[in-house]
Amino acid sequence: MADVHLPTTTPLRVIHVGADLFADALAAQNVTVTRVAWQPAAGANDDALSLLLNDVRVEDANQQAVQRMIGARPRLVDVRPAREVIPGMHRHLLLHAGPPITWERMSGPLRGAIIGALIYEGLATDQESAERLVTSGEIAFAPCHHYHAVGPMAGVISASMPVQIIEEPIYGNQTFSTLNEGLGRVLRYGANNAEVINRLRWMEQVLGPALARAIRAMGGIEIKAMTAQALQMGDECHNRNKAATSLLLRQIAPALVETGNSNQETARVLRFINSNDHFYLNLSMAACKAAAVAAHGIPFSSVVTTMARNGTDFGIRVSGLGENWYVGPAQRVHGLYFSGFSEQDANPDIGDSTISETVGIGAFVMAAAPAIVQFIGGTPADALRYTLEMYDITVAEDTQYQLPQLNFRGAPVGVDVRQVVRQNLLPIINTGIAHRLPGIGQVGAGIVRPPMISFVSAVQALGIELQKA
Amino acid sequence: MADVHLPTTTPLRVIHVGADLFADALAAQNVTVTRVAWQPAAGANDDALSLLLNDVRVEDANQQAVQRMIGARPRLVDVRPAREVIPGMHRHLLLHAGPPITWERMSGPLRGAIIGALIYEGLATDQESAERLVTSGEIAFAPCHHYHAVGPMAGVISASMPVQIIEEPIYGNQTFSTLNEGLGRVLRYGANNAEVINRLRWMEQVLGPALARAIRAMGGIEIKAMTAQALQMGDECHNRNKAATSLLLRQIAPALVETGNSNQETARVLRFINSNDHFYLNLSMAACKAAAVAAHGIPFSSVVTTMARNGTDFGIRVSGLGENWYVGPAQRVHGLYFSGFSEQDANPDIGDSTISETVGIGAFVMAAAPAIVQFIGGTPADALRYTLEMYDITVAEDTQYQLPQLNFRGAPVGVDVRQVVRQNLLPIINTGIAHRLPGIGQVGAGIVRPPMISFVSAVQALGIELQKA
Repeated sequence: MADVHLPTTTPLRVIHVGADLFADALAAQNVTVTRVAWQPAAGANDDALSLLLNDVRVEDANQQAVQRMIGARPRLVDVRPAREVIPGMHRHLLLHAGPPITWERMSGPLRGAIIGALIYEGLATDQESAERLVTSGEIAFAPCHHYHAVGPMAGVISASMPVQIIEEPIYGNQTFSTLNEGLGRVLRYGANNAEVINRLRWMEQVLGPALARAIRAMGGIEIKAMTAQALQMGDECHNRNKAATSLLLRQIAPALVETGNSNQETARVLRFINSNDHFYLNLSMAACKAAAVAAHGIPFSSVVTTMARNGTDFGIRVSGLGENWYVGPAQRVHGLYFSGFSEQDANPDIGDSTISETVGIGAFVMAAAPAIVQFIGGTPADALRYTLEMYDITVAEDTQYQLPQLNFRGAPVGVDVRQVVRQNLLPIINTGIAHRLPGIGQVGAGIVRPPMISFVSAVQALGIELQKA
Repeated sequence: MADVHLPTTTPLRVIHVGADLFADALAAQNVTVTRVAWQPAAGANDDALSLLLNDVRVEDANQQAVQRMIGARPRLVDVRPAREVIPGMHRHLLLHAGPPITWERMSGPLRGAIIGALIYEGLATDQESAERLVTSGEIAFAPCHHYHAVGPMAGVISASMPVQIIEEPIYGNQTFSTLNEGLGRVLRYGANNAEVINRLRWMEQVLGPALARAIRAMGGIEIKAMTAQALQMGDECHNRNKAATSLLLRQIAPALVETGNSNQETARVLRFINSNDHFYLNLSMAACKAAAVAAHGIPFSSVVTTMARNGTDFGIRVSGLGENWYVGPAQRVHGLYFSGFSEQDANPDIGDSTISETVGIGAFVMAAAPAIVQFIGGTPADALRYTLEMYDITVAEDTQYQLPQLNFRGAPVGVDVRQVVRQNLLPIINTGIAHRLPGIGQVGAGIVRPPMISFVSAVQALGIELQKA
């Protein structure tokens, strides 16, 4: 569906700013390249970048994109098996987090999750047979994002997994995410033992249908309003979802009771949600994805509509740049490690959960979640500073996401790749840290910035688009 | 059980600081009074007040009192009818908020609640017969505080009402509060129509027993840890209890399901709690009362262990000053009014909910709850300033109540009457505002300070105690 290369179907003329290797690569493909002397943070005075920055078509497109992002009203309407609701999903297709990647380049936790998913689907019986199946070429891989889906960490979605369905009625799209498995040894961190597989089966057979009955009985649940409340309750809805999970549980509990198969089963469902302060994360991600989809495809817009990592690569997509990914290396996360682990154990940055920051929550609103620093490191002053920085690289403020700590200022929303490059100021992301080996799980949490090269590439590509038009 | 006068059973010698009317009153009772020239805020250099301020007996006693206040571990263990569990409770006794008061001096909302409670108990059929019963002298009134109980606003507790039972195992006391009725027309704001009475009966017959079964099945619930979490989730647990109510519901929901009589009943109980973000308030108040009781009765301690208002008078009690109330006029609340109401509709300050501030939460930790200013007025900067001020008049910081906004500094706890007078800095309180007429309900919410005279009287009384010893 998409491609990691720059568009090459029509002859290109390129205004080149930034690292030479891109200009070199383009020149090698016989593309005319105008090389502009430029360095990050000194670029404001550069004529070529100024041209991009002041193009009224970009400004107008960005306003349109961000108003759609802000205006989206995602609604949880159902929970169903992925194969029944995700268009194109089938038994031999596995979706994963981040930009496209081959098995050979996948990191440990993603491989572990792939193996687990194949065992869970009954396509393999153990690690060896799973790896054999993968190398035989019978299994297709694709980014969740290519199917309007998102998954945290490894982000693996297979056909039988129950997915939450978000409907966005204003701009008319559907998005999907798996249900959050909880903490400890879980598939999304690459664990795949019997405990993990049994839990996935219980989620498929009990949790998913129970939630589906309750949600349908309620006629759906508005997600943006719930997130907005949680932002006034110390969550930033990426790595702190305690309030949002609580709000979801209290809202859904009566319907769970009324539509439950038995008290024993309903109590177990309630305990499962109550035991996991991140239960809301996946739901929030699917809602964020709906807002991002609404904002995507506005010609000339330089607003980022995807940021995602597969544990090896980090990639972005931009509203005005079609389905192309602008990819760089997944970065090292700086943070706090659980007892017994250190940076040497850490996998590089992984997961689709950066869809949070893409639509202005998560690390972008850490000012609203000062208690999160006990989990990811730093101080409440850092959290405040991160949010204030993000106003400099975003297009608008989302007044529905009011931050009490900033006197109810709206969240900074809509990352503009031009501003990221011009100011040499990268989006801030907070994230869990996976062990680099499959099967071990989360080893910490912290702060990471994406690779600048993704944004420079996108700026270059936007320059091409503008010249073409 | 207690008395609003200064102790007069033994001859007194008084060091008098503050308003002359006290010295005059004492002189009129043939008490020897040493008058000291003094004015609030200029008092720090005053020899007599300095003597009180530097008395090592007071310092030691205050440390002991506040360590008990901080060390208390209140635990919700049951819900039972008041008459079965509150020692001395009987059918013709009504407990109310604040210091002692006669029917003649009661404000509108307190009268309305008294009438409602008599109808609810089947002792009267309407307002007229209720008032006749009261004026006949057959009904006894007493402060909730005299029975280790607390009630918000009018705070009326009658024999049949289900009360939450807090057990404090370390210092060994039991405290009580009613269940929160929700918003709108409710008894605690003086409403007493059929809707109010029917709801009270449902709470007695369904809600109370359902909660009791769940809480007993869970073996009780730790309250201080839950409040501590809520303080990191934007609550201050007096006028913002949204997070705490959510945490309570999610923790208790599985047990409610497992011990419920029917799904229909359980769902209604869950909806009742979910519909009322203040459900946690009464529970928190009983837990605060347990901490205050633990800190009470330390000889020479100048730490406040009760602040309460009956809608006419405001009263405090002090750890080292026995059961005496130090009373002044209930003050006007400054805040935001609901549509259609103004200050002219407001009753003066009312309710036992100031037990929150007494043990260091509520308005004392408004820094942690910036979103509350949308309900009570002011700005997040005001909320921060209120908390910072309170460190100046309190004895210690409660490190279990960590405030993220102040870099996890502990809550200011243990109001010292000496510091209040010396610095002319009154405790800050946030509160709902009741209509001055019975039956109408809440008309707004805001900020209020208690009358200085209560603290000056307590300082005087402490001076007497020190001289006696």
